[in-house]
Amino acid sequence: MSAVGGQRLSFRVLASDGAARRGEITTPHGTIQTPVFMPVGTLASVKSLTTEQLAALGPEIILCNTYHLMLRPGIDLLEQLGGVHRFMGWDRAVLTDSGGFQLFSLASIRKIREEGVEFRSHIDGSAYFLSPERSVEIQSRMGVDIAMAFDECPAYGLSKGEVEKSMELTHRWARRSLAARRGSALFGIVQGGVHNDLRKRSAEEISGMDFDGVAIGGVSVGEPKHEMQEVVRFTAPLLPADKPRYLMGVGTPEDLLEGVAAGIDMFDCVMPTRNARNGTLFTSLGKVSIKNARFAADPRPLDPHCSCVACRTVSRAYLRHLFLNGEIAASVYNTIHNLSFYLDLMRSIRQSIASNSFGSFRDAFVSRLSSGDEEAKA
Amino acid sequence: MSAVGGQRLSFRVLASDGAARRGEITTPHGTIQTPVFMPVGTLASVKSLTTEQLAALGPEIILCNTYHLMLRPGIDLLEQLGGVHRFMGWDRAVLTDSGGFQLFSLASIRKIREEGVEFRSHIDGSAYFLSPERSVEIQSRMGVDIAMAFDECPAYGLSKGEVEKSMELTHRWARRSLAARRGSALFGIVQGGVHNDLRKRSAEEISGMDFDGVAIGGVSVGEPKHEMQEVVRFTAPLLPADKPRYLMGVGTPEDLLEGVAAGIDMFDCVMPTRNARNGTLFTSLGKVSIKNARFAADPRPLDPHCSCVACRTVSRAYLRHLFLNGEIAASVYNTIHNLSFYLDLMRSIRQSIASNSFGSFRDAFVSRLSSGDEEAKA
Repeated sequence: MSAVGGQRLSFRVLASDGAARRGEITTPHGTIQTPVFMPVGTLASVKSLTTEQLAALGPEIILCNTYHLMLRPGIDLLEQLGGVHRFMGWDRAVLTDSGGFQLFSLASIRKIREEGVEFRSHIDGSAYFLSPERSVEIQSRMGVDIAMAFDECPAYGLSKGEVEKSMELTHRWARRSLAARRGSALFGIVQGGVHNDLRKRSAEEISGMDFDGVAIGGVSVGEPKHEMQEVVRFTAPLLPADKPRYLMGVGTPEDLLEGVAAGIDMFDCVMPTRNARNGTLFTSLGKVSIKNARFAADPRPLDPHCSCVACRTVSRAYLRHLFLNGEIAASVYNTIHNLSFYLDLMRSIRQSIASNSFGSFRDAFVSRLSSGDEEAKA
Repeated sequence: MSAVGGQRLSFRVLASDGAARRGEITTPHGTIQTPVFMPVGTLASVKSLTTEQLAALGPEIILCNTYHLMLRPGIDLLEQLGGVHRFMGWDRAVLTDSGGFQLFSLASIRKIREEGVEFRSHIDGSAYFLSPERSVEIQSRMGVDIAMAFDECPAYGLSKGEVEKSMELTHRWARRSLAARRGSALFGIVQGGVHNDLRKRSAEEISGMDFDGVAIGGVSVGEPKHEMQEVVRFTAPLLPADKPRYLMGVGTPEDLLEGVAAGIDMFDCVMPTRNARNGTLFTSLGKVSIKNARFAADPRPLDPHCSCVACRTVSRAYLRHLFLNGEIAASVYNTIHNLSFYLDLMRSIRQSIASNSFGSFRDAFVSRLSSGDEEAKA
């Protein structure tokens, strides 16, 4: 067992299968089995679900969003109300991003200086400031189990020189984030765009700091999928073996399998919850759009291999009916199903690693998906 | 025990307290304790809830909507899929309205003849036809436990002559509905607007027919509250004592207490579910708008006397946060709470009748509401 971060967090690898690892992270709010997928609860709510419904799906950790929560309801209020766990009635682990990613994608006006970022809320234009110190302070005041270092997340398509400059700022901010670490465990973030030499420098730099875990950031920002996969395959092995490795903002079921194969332990993505609200559902036979007319009279469960409440209790025809008519329950059923699909996938991945059969599980899953894309539509 | 309608439905009064009665309706899908409030599931979905969530709240019967379901998903499809129970995964009782009310409030173009009503869908303008025979047939094909006779629901403000003419059509349609009765139990509907002599004639006419229950229709159509209450107080005692009495589309918690006091056994209303989505919540201390700024930092449960999941697990501040930010979970929590409030109220009403204390329960409830309206806002 390789404990990092003292009381804050411990991590141990329980089994390996090639680069894929089956592990366990212990936090003040319980133990997390890895590889793990973290549902996204941007505003302290995993969209469409009550906290009770979410808990019933079994995730051991969720992700909340520093940028959004500092705007609404505000950090003073959140702290006064006892932190994010009490606020949403959630007694398992919470990880927060640092605000870096949202600043560079949402804030309407921002001014980046060495010190930090001045920005205006995308909601009402009011002025805010985030810096490494401020972000880490905020995350600690929210009482989260795992905070993320404050980073700059460069857009895809910048010149290599710009990406390098941004990466170096991220490194200086990483040191300042670490110096500001308080109650929560803190993960560093590797940047470097799609450039292997920059990723290598960043991995070495961040791995050399006393973080409780290390994340790969700056992916899923518009780059082609093969470039993202190449970054992950190249970077993951460069990260410390005795700390959790977190691939931020990824991804599809296939991306999770690729990430695990590269040695990633943690994932988060809005895809299952956002797609659910748009009527795009993940099944063991491929992705389907529930509004498709072929489901109109289909009495079968959405996914015969799923035991979620949508698949146990109602038909494809009913799910289509709810979605087409804008019923709120459509989002609820669809979110439950998509999250169940993701969480079930992670359970199967963990089992396959433990039984040294991850490779064959991955091949079978992907080939079922690609052959099944047609079947799911039949 | 006074069984009506043969196999279809039986009703017995278990206790009385003045005109208020505590009873039991037995249907093919279970026994219903009365007085009962039926949550509204217009499109075979009680808005915002999965069927599993709805069942956990404990209602023994819900109301679905013939007009809406014949438009979407359509009756042929619904029948092919095994009826409304199987469609939504609901194994308790279902009552459907006959379409009469919606025809007169929603259909974009309609042509009323003695035979029935030609109308165009408010959604896509396509042409439909409803008649007593067609409505009863549709309700039976959906497999509902209780169907409603097809009636004309006159708008408030018509001349007495027009209301009388409409009532007489409703009576002729009632006879035709009854002649068309098939698998489902069938309730007649008393009309007559706000005119006591018409209500008396209608009550006598409908009570004289072999229905399984009798409803008061044509209220909550825009008339002042005191006129509605007068209609109920006047009409309810004129209905058969050995059949369930149903007050359609009513109402506020106070309206339910008034209705029970007049001898009503069944109620339905969109108020708890619709208000929930608008952020208006019923509490034991009065109605509150959850978006109010005074809840911003309020760590207390919404209603200290409620044990629903919203009141057990999250604060007023959190409910306000979800609502203000348009989170879908706001509708879910709010709907669970408002329906819990209504269903708890009906449980308390039934207990108070059984213990001969309905009058004092009603007085205490109403006085707590009126004194508490301020307190709830404090």
